[in-house]
Amino acid sequence: MANLTVTYFSNCLRRNTSFKMFIPNDPRYDWPPIENEYTKRPTKTLFLLHGYTGDGDVWVNPMQCAEYNVAVVAPSGENGFWLDGISTGHQFATMLGVELVDYVRKTFGLAKTPEDTCIMGLSMGGFGALHTALMFPETFGKCAALSSALIHNEVADMKEGSGNEVANYEYYRECFGDPSKLKESVNNPEYLIKQLKEKSAKFPEIFMACGTEDFLIENNRKFHAFLEEEGVKHTYVEGKGIHDMVFWSEYAAKFIPEMFG
Amino acid sequence: MANLTVTYFSNCLRRNTSFKMFIPNDPRYDWPPIENEYTKRPTKTLFLLHGYTGDGDVWVNPMQCAEYNVAVVAPSGENGFWLDGISTGHQFATMLGVELVDYVRKTFGLAKTPEDTCIMGLSMGGFGALHTALMFPETFGKCAALSSALIHNEVADMKEGSGNEVANYEYYRECFGDPSKLKESVNNPEYLIKQLKEKSAKFPEIFMACGTEDFLIENNRKFHAFLEEEGVKHTYVEGKGIHDMVFWSEYAAKFIPEMFG
Amino acid sequence: MANLTVTYFSNCLRRNTSFKMFIPNDPRYDWPPIENEYTKRPTKTLFLLHGYTGDGDVWVNPMQCAEYNVAVVAPSGENGFWLDGISTGHQFATMLGVELVDYVRKTFGLAKTPEDTCIMGLSMGGFGALHTALMFPETFGKCAALSSALIHNEVADMKEGSGNEVANYEYYRECFGDPSKLKESVNNPEYLIKQLKEKSAKFPEIFMACGTEDFLIENNRKFHAFLEEEGVKHTYVEGKGIHDMVFWSEYAAKFIPEMFG
Amino acid sequence: MANLTVTYFSNCLRRNTSFKMFIPNDPRYDWPPIENEYTKRPTKTLFLLHGYTGDGDVWVNPMQCAEYNVAVVAPSGENGFWLDGISTGHQFATMLGVELVDYVRKTFGLAKTPEDTCIMGLSMGGFGALHTALMFPETFGKCAALSSALIHNEVADMKEGSGNEVANYEYYRECFGDPSKLKESVNNPEYLIKQLKEKSAKFPEIFMACGTEDFLIENNRKFHAFLEEEGVKHTYVEGKGIHDMVFWSEYAAKFIPEMFG
Repeated sequence: MANLTVTYFSNCLRRNTSFKMFIPNDPRYDWPPIENEYTKRPTKTLFLLHGYTGDGDVWVNPMQCAEYNVAVVAPSGENGFWLDGISTGHQFATMLGVELVDYVRKTFGLAKTPEDTCIMGLSMGGFGALHTALMFPETFGKCAALSSALIHNEVADMKEGSGNEVANYEYYRECFGDPSKLKESVNNPEYLIKQLKEKSAKFPEIFMACGTEDFLIENNRKFHAFLEEEGVKHTYVEGKGIHDMVFWSEYAAKFIPEMFG
Repeated sequence: MANLTVTYFSNCLRRNTSFKMFIPNDPRYDWPPIENEYTKRPTKTLFLLHGYTGDGDVWVNPMQCAEYNVAVVAPSGENGFWLDGISTGHQFATMLGVELVDYVRKTFGLAKTPEDTCIMGLSMGGFGALHTALMFPETFGKCAALSSALIHNEVADMKEGSGNEVANYEYYRECFGDPSKLKESVNNPEYLIKQLKEKSAKFPEIFMACGTEDFLIENNRKFHAFLEEEGVKHTYVEGKGIHDMVFWSEYAAKFIPEMFG
Repeated sequence: MANLTVTYFSNCLRRNTSFKMFIPNDPRYDWPPIENEYTKRPTKTLFLLHGYTGDGDVWVNPMQCAEYNVAVVAPSGENGFWLDGISTGHQFATMLGVELVDYVRKTFGLAKTPEDTCIMGLSMGGFGALHTALMFPETFGKCAALSSALIHNEVADMKEGSGNEVANYEYYRECFGDPSKLKESVNNPEYLIKQLKEKSAKFPEIFMACGTEDFLIENNRKFHAFLEEEGVKHTYVEGKGIHDMVFWSEYAAKFIPEMFG
Repeated sequence: MANLTVTYFSNCLRRNTSFKMFIPNDPRYDWPPIENEYTKRPTKTLFLLHGYTGDGDVWVNPMQCAEYNVAVVAPSGENGFWLDGISTGHQFATMLGVELVDYVRKTFGLAKTPEDTCIMGLSMGGFGALHTALMFPETFGKCAALSSALIHNEVADMKEGSGNEVANYEYYRECFGDPSKLKESVNNPEYLIKQLKEKSAKFPEIFMACGTEDFLIENNRKFHAFLEEEGVKHTYVEGKGIHDMVFWSEYAAKFIPEMFG
């Protein structure tokens, strides 16, 4: 398997940026070589999103991805909540869902269909995985959201001068846009869902997981309830666990076969 | 010489971030080995700032730095103008002038005096080099500013809804803070100079260069004039050239011996 | 924690070479920060050796190393069996045990005592960990050898034109020197042990582990028996497992607290 | 442009190995964007070989390569003279001329014709560029050899126990095979030339340059004379210069347009 660090110029960010990538090689260039029903077909792609405080890193098991012939693309989204913010160059959603998809498909010849293009994230990246797949459902056929920071309703209630223990009001405004307009903004996954329903558009397959001891469990339960109410088909699981890599490794390993098997 | 890519957690940015680094090795671990009057003393440091659209990269000649026993630290400042912005985690000036200096000194045992700690940048990084050295003059003894984007006076005049061909108002507000308050802000190098004079504080040594065909030449001439008016000692040179790496390579090579020789 | 890729000139290899490194940061530069009885003392070092077909990579858990304030240095030894071979530049043992130790201590200010300098490896790297610690017992206080390729007795029996399914005679000659002289060569860990006993020199602490289903189990049992016969104190454990990362992760996690706790 | 570090498993070397790569991006992912007659056609490839003591590094000007839409692949060949040696895994020529070409074409979709696949090297890499192109003339349409270490005739004269100031006999035997058989070995570029003539095979285009003050000038003049004698068409230039990067940068910049223009 090939491990890559790629630096390229992003128009959405208006600057050079780097991402990590893993490509399962042709069995001839791998040790031990993997050859099965999956490795005969074009390589699929998993976009992998980090959380707040993190940066682009391949936190799934490369051997498991190689088994399903899945390339992993792990961009750095800083702490931008994987959204298109209000200032020039602060366009993480479009960078991810349009630019990076196009770039890696062209540069590495990866599969181009939505069913072969999946997105998974943890915490802030779980929010990002849901949001990106709902914003670009013709691109991403499946998304997996682990311990997701589904904080859009809290943010929508923020007033100038407020904020929380994580960050100030300006930070949230920068990422999500004017909080007072978030209810009806494309930065709000609930709004995107309502729009998709209105247009009778195809939804991505949705996989969600959260630990029962995670401080974000209520946010995840609420979003699960919202999906139920809206009649959006999805997989939702809870398991023993907190907001840590132990939980994410376990559920990433469970969702990868469901997405690519 | 050692070429490093270092990833660490930055408190100022509230996330993992990477920088590139070059360390001149002990002559025993270099080929060809360099041994002279400089290599006997503790290794000095040059912080190297990229411009708008760029990212952390060692754009000076490592061989020349090795000759003067100078380590190069090239952080990524995104398009943040190397300033402390208004939102949580948007603190590039403090990240650079406090955190990164402390981090690399501790991790790599570099010289700790201001005369052995210099900063150089190009374009947006030229602005950053001047600003950082003026904000932390007890840390940085010398700064070299090439083709500097000294746009603080334009930014100070911006009104909500405005902006320019490079970026929108929100971007400038995010980097510089409220433009209407920039005249008397620590993000304004002219304000920092007035403050240093008031406190009779020591100034860093200042080296400036700009190409006569550079679109930023007038901004550089104005800042040079401002320094003259204020009686701040500095070196200012103009040379044939535009806003490109040819000019920056030439003047970096000229200023390195002046700063470290 | 800092993840580094370092390129430097090795005199032993006569060329530029790269290694990976992990440094636990000062708690102020880590997220989440770790602070305990270990993080107050100078940072210790674990040299980590890969197996045949591998290259330098941090295959231990960085979080566990950070807890014990241990920096990890993972050099690339190609398929050289971590030995000083017969041709110019083929000096992996001295590169590792003399040059690299000195280089990383000087560059990163790591602890200098043998009890704070340990070495661990898997497969060919398990052989290397034992061999290096026995060759430089004043440098390495402890070694951990996982599923070690203790093939020195097979190699000693090889004749010109022979070899095995892994590699040809020339390969073994290149790594181990003339097989017919291997019985009494510093490339033979058994010979090193006899020499240390003769000189009544201090032995490194030895930790060994091998999976009961590993194809190298008999080689490990024989070396264990040899250590018993020679009266060399050591820890030897067998566990369910084969020659794979599952076994190595489990036993690395067990030996790290024993070496650094 | 994309800068890559790629790690993959090489069957020829029997281990993981890394190479550096530069890919000129689609103009949409570049800043400043380059668009001309070349950027419309499939991306060409330049394999770039380092010298003795070096390792894989992009030592040509990426901007110039981007102009001609040329990807650069810079493998690490250790000090192996880019030849297939005698021991298992010591197969740098086949790694380069068969495996790596196939791997990068497949992974990055590069042009597949010999006229779009060129090879250039300096010193030991100059020898390698000539040798590889002559060994695989159906793959490499053009080669550029700078200050080449054309030492095959010296090596052919070496006896057991001899060697020179650079390395011992064992080293040369490891790289070139039994010196006494080198006259009629595929590791000898003169032998390859005679074979190509015998088979009336197509030759690669050959570009050679050497500095008049280079310690290898006589070796280059002799090989030039040999090519003349054999009636092999080639470009041979001498210029003021020694065995250093100044000369190599100058002549790389001259040969790139001749190879790709």
